[in-house]
Amino acid sequence: MREVAVVGVGLTKFGERWDTSFRNLFVEAGAKAVEDAGMSGDQIDEMFVGNMSGGRFVLQEHIGALIADHAGLTKNHIPATRVEAACASGGLAFRQAYTTVASGIQDIVIAGGVEKMTDVGGSETTDALAGAADREWEGLAGATFPGLYAMIATDYMNRYGLTREQLAMVSVKNHRNGVHNPIAQYRKEITVEDVMRSTLVADPLRLLDCSPVTDGAAAVILCPMEMARKFTDTPVKVLASSQASDTISLHDRRDFSTLDASVAAGRRAFKQASLTPKDIGMVEVHDCFTIAELCAIEDLGFCVKGEAGKLTEDGQTAIGGSIPVNTSGGLKSCGHPVGATGIKQVCEIVSQLRGEAVGRQVDAEIGMTHNVGGTGATVVCNILGV
Amino acid sequence: MREVAVVGVGLTKFGERWDTSFRNLFVEAGAKAVEDAGMSGDQIDEMFVGNMSGGRFVLQEHIGALIADHAGLTKNHIPATRVEAACASGGLAFRQAYTTVASGIQDIVIAGGVEKMTDVGGSETTDALAGAADREWEGLAGATFPGLYAMIATDYMNRYGLTREQLAMVSVKNHRNGVHNPIAQYRKEITVEDVMRSTLVADPLRLLDCSPVTDGAAAVILCPMEMARKFTDTPVKVLASSQASDTISLHDRRDFSTLDASVAAGRRAFKQASLTPKDIGMVEVHDCFTIAELCAIEDLGFCVKGEAGKLTEDGQTAIGGSIPVNTSGGLKSCGHPVGATGIKQVCEIVSQLRGEAVGRQVDAEIGMTHNVGGTGATVVCNILGV
Repeated sequence: MREVAVVGVGLTKFGERWDTSFRNLFVEAGAKAVEDAGMSGDQIDEMFVGNMSGGRFVLQEHIGALIADHAGLTKNHIPATRVEAACASGGLAFRQAYTTVASGIQDIVIAGGVEKMTDVGGSETTDALAGAADREWEGLAGATFPGLYAMIATDYMNRYGLTREQLAMVSVKNHRNGVHNPIAQYRKEITVEDVMRSTLVADPLRLLDCSPVTDGAAAVILCPMEMARKFTDTPVKVLASSQASDTISLHDRRDFSTLDASVAAGRRAFKQASLTPKDIGMVEVHDCFTIAELCAIEDLGFCVKGEAGKLTEDGQTAIGGSIPVNTSGGLKSCGHPVGATGIKQVCEIVSQLRGEAVGRQVDAEIGMTHNVGGTGATVVCNILGV
Repeated sequence: MREVAVVGVGLTKFGERWDTSFRNLFVEAGAKAVEDAGMSGDQIDEMFVGNMSGGRFVLQEHIGALIADHAGLTKNHIPATRVEAACASGGLAFRQAYTTVASGIQDIVIAGGVEKMTDVGGSETTDALAGAADREWEGLAGATFPGLYAMIATDYMNRYGLTREQLAMVSVKNHRNGVHNPIAQYRKEITVEDVMRSTLVADPLRLLDCSPVTDGAAAVILCPMEMARKFTDTPVKVLASSQASDTISLHDRRDFSTLDASVAAGRRAFKQASLTPKDIGMVEVHDCFTIAELCAIEDLGFCVKGEAGKLTEDGQTAIGGSIPVNTSGGLKSCGHPVGATGIKQVCEIVSQLRGEAVGRQVDAEIGMTHNVGGTGATVVCNILGV
């Protein structure tokens, strides 16, 4: 297996992008990644695209070819593959691209993610997203995603004494970081009081505990490390890329507050990179809801179970803390175009390791991503370093 | 890259499977493949599932984890990835599984495909399938798949003098083969007259030119060749697996009657296997409509452009002919559960090369598959041999 580097990254502005279309969103991100790598699109050998629900959101499947075509990449008839694992679709795209380069099957591969969620109305969006859970045993019983994560939060709070205020602090911290991220959907600070007073969505989760509905795309370009300096002076090395699954239904888990797929994917990534959590300088975790960030910090081994709320309250997950979490603003402030999020996380690590994260820069040489599908039926972790 | 073998295959009965569910369909095929390989499910390291439109047909996304869970494979938290390229989704699953084993990332990988199409009504099915074409430039203009392939047929007939009867002979031949395939949806012979008298769907295509709407699943198990004889006395070697893309819209092609992605994928497969069309003993091609089989035979190089109708009329594509095409019955007689078809094609090759294709056996040591997404925006080819 060859060493693999990220040599280009590209992101669209995240938000309600009624100014553009599904396909144009991806091309916007892809063109930026190609430009960032200083290459031409003709040099790309293969494409992987993460997308959760083009079928429901924009009535479009066959998304790999659609995007390759619209990006002008079908001239060489490159393979273009859509991968899907709900909100972890972007993570899957990165892992397949990594595998394809590491194995020597291709040299230059683009991995992207895209979701256009605002072209349909509210209840249709909620129902499409419910397709990430078990339709027969969760969806048909009326469980939506805020409801499922509310059950996780309730279990967690009862068992570990997490306070409602600590939960809010996750959101406050991520909004503080997002102010400095030009692509973030909500670039404004909020207070614990704002969170506590926001509309109750699914007790105990309130509106400002929940990541929003977002349009956006992200893309990265991978190539063998030995080729990387042709394209950039600051290649970022992929140290590990891992994926794990778990039961699709929350009610089938042995433990509501531990995502076993996070534990498994995290351990596999650390093993592949020969590293431990202590070696990680920053981490982008999947804060689709505030409670999810706390579970992730613990499941990946950055603190013991039940202590992530205290860690957050003490400022250790903030920029300048012992383990900065979601310097990008996370899903909460950046927004969460579900297929794009896993790639956006990689873009943030690359920006940080290059020293380009203006206003939110941390001092790190190794970063990690953690991307969750559903309530944890799929988790992808990547570790990158300079 | 390691040599890779197929050591287990499993198929459900194809048809209107109102007796079962989406998830159970896949488990039925997967369990048969595991049994065929004489292994236990716990030995599987990773899963790839091809599925086109679970979001539209059964309101379910996150299909990799759903199926891994329902098949009892999440105990070891194996990676489970859904791939999608419309009707070529199964082909993609096979290629990613092949890559994963060949590269040494995993040893034992299951590749499957599944589609449950009959749980929604007729116009919803047609509209979901239109998601395989360009929604903005084809779907919104009213082009359905029979309409798009009718344009290909019209162009082809005008340019190459193909007769309406020759087109019908494709369907007649595939129905004759399908009689002997126990999983086929329509196990009955039809005549040229039956085809000519069937309902006009999109001129010149009639009902019996069109593959049906089908529920079904298929699965194959891959492992390194060096490990294969632990599981089977008749391993089938993967000699090539290739994929190519083209414009998503038919109107953007340089030529309606040639699928450039078929040409590209075919050439790549022959190059990888160091073979030519003359070396192929049988081929399963993507006959979603009768005209598609004729284009495929030519695009893969089994005859020159314009002669596939004559080749069919002369019986050269029948069992016993110079190049038997679609001994399984093809999409026309077997049915076309869109995500499963690419894997079903591999299952047919394996059955033939093992000498287990009772009633339809050909004398071949090398077989090829050709799986198309949309009107040819994605094509996957595989070559297998003993």
